[in-house]
Amino acid sequence: MYDLIIIGMGVSGISGAIYAKRAGLKVLLLDHSAPGGTLNIIPEIENYPGIDNISGPDLAMNLFNTVNKLGIEYKLEEVTDVILDNIKTVKTKDNAYQSKYILIASGRKPKMLGLKDEDKYIGNGISTCALCDGAFFKGKEVAVIGGGSSAVSEALYLSKIVKKVYLIHRREEFRAENTLIDKLKQIKNIELILNNEVTSLITDNNQLIGLKLKDRDINISGMFLYIGFIPNTDFLHNTALKLENGYIIVDSNGETNIEGVYAAGDVTKKEIYQIINAASEGALAAINISKN
Amino acid sequence: MYDLIIIGMGVSGISGAIYAKRAGLKVLLLDHSAPGGTLNIIPEIENYPGIDNISGPDLAMNLFNTVNKLGIEYKLEEVTDVILDNIKTVKTKDNAYQSKYILIASGRKPKMLGLKDEDKYIGNGISTCALCDGAFFKGKEVAVIGGGSSAVSEALYLSKIVKKVYLIHRREEFRAENTLIDKLKQIKNIELILNNEVTSLITDNNQLIGLKLKDRDINISGMFLYIGFIPNTDFLHNTALKLENGYIIVDSNGETNIEGVYAAGDVTKKEIYQIINAASEGALAAINISKN
Repeated sequence: MYDLIIIGMGVSGISGAIYAKRAGLKVLLLDHSAPGGTLNIIPEIENYPGIDNISGPDLAMNLFNTVNKLGIEYKLEEVTDVILDNIKTVKTKDNAYQSKYILIASGRKPKMLGLKDEDKYIGNGISTCALCDGAFFKGKEVAVIGGGSSAVSEALYLSKIVKKVYLIHRREEFRAENTLIDKLKQIKNIELILNNEVTSLITDNNQLIGLKLKDRDINISGMFLYIGFIPNTDFLHNTALKLENGYIIVDSNGETNIEGVYAAGDVTKKEIYQIINAASEGALAAINISKN
Repeated sequence: MYDLIIIGMGVSGISGAIYAKRAGLKVLLLDHSAPGGTLNIIPEIENYPGIDNISGPDLAMNLFNTVNKLGIEYKLEEVTDVILDNIKTVKTKDNAYQSKYILIASGRKPKMLGLKDEDKYIGNGISTCALCDGAFFKGKEVAVIGGGSSAVSEALYLSKIVKKVYLIHRREEFRAENTLIDKLKQIKNIELILNNEVTSLITDNNQLIGLKLKDRDINISGMFLYIGFIPNTDFLHNTALKLENGYIIVDSNGETNIEGVYAAGDVTKKEIYQIINAASEGALAAINISKN
């Protein structure tokens, strides 16, 4: 029996664990894969106050070092189901754990375009992580899809590795920080394709070789998607947790509509999804839990 | 004319400045003294997620480095008055600056006990900053007053420098993190004096030489106060800003009751005053300002 089980080892989950552990709670962290969550797909972070410049994986490693230094218990198991009675039960494939409180910090995952055969080419031409997969396309031509800060910064990142980047956005204007847009204008091997959309993949012999857009075709060997996210809340199917578009609704203390169940970070419904906010929300939820 | 004037160069003010500058706003940071605010009096920070362990002044320096790297304009001038019309005017002793938006991140300062002659001995026996003044008391006996995390962690810090620390708290129990209380129990040269209070200073020849408590006297040459804070909102005397006990009331966007006026960090009315939350609040306010 734990005081607190935290689902997710991204920045909000680990931040919550640090605060909960320091407050003397018996804490268990659960995640299906390596610590860091979405941090692991971010090449460069320049807006985490107090750290001038760091890669996502390095920030993840810093967080994980603190987990180990504080002796916080963690298990790399995927949560499949939770039962949110007075005592909370968290099930993974092989185990079940119980606690008084739960903090859901399971984050979100990249959205796909929904094209025919898209799934088949993920990891084989289609990627949602320039940091992970960019190097495979050295000297080649790639497309980046999206119009927000992620799309722009990943296009910038890829432009240093590949021969040419097509940045394809369905609108005229980018929703990205000005700093990034200014940088974009200075890069010669990025071609902007605005007011356009990918309608289908062009493949040959199980290789992605191009994209059909609304009014033209382009030859590329890789496509990177940054068109939004889907919250990771599938494991909540047996609960009465209040969601909006899959995102968990929390109050100003980080508590959900079910007593003793808190949520923090990218899995929650909110206006702003920044790393520093996720860190703060995890801490806040843990402090409120420890006050109970 | 600036887009945004930020009053205060602590963690929330600088965090806001980083986000505002990256969003393309013309920003001015104002503070009466060195950047970092309250960070400058914190010897050790172990709960800023992503940085395992850092001194307050080092974290302040990291933040200030980012200010300089981004070319954010700042002036070391004390704000004496603000006029919050449609255009905002911020006055310092010699200058007046104007902007569309204001972010108040002026923090708070340590409370004093209110004893006779207390003011006279500040900086001469009485301190609110162990990091700044601890070294003056090497080999001597000092008192730390307070029962929260700050008091406990500063007592721990001083115990490594001075001969003996009396930790004086008016209650039986500490309101500090368990990690800190566990550490406290292991330190031999800290004497706990609980359920007690300082009633007056004992001085000799303009030197602090001891304290009168309710039921005993102790000989000390230094007293360190950690009994709470007072928000820095004196310069708001000519405004209709909604305050509670001097703290500024903000909504979930960080906006005050006056349009275009935002506040973040320790100067705001809230439940939890942690560095990571202040960083998040500054970012949040700046993002919301940049969306306007």
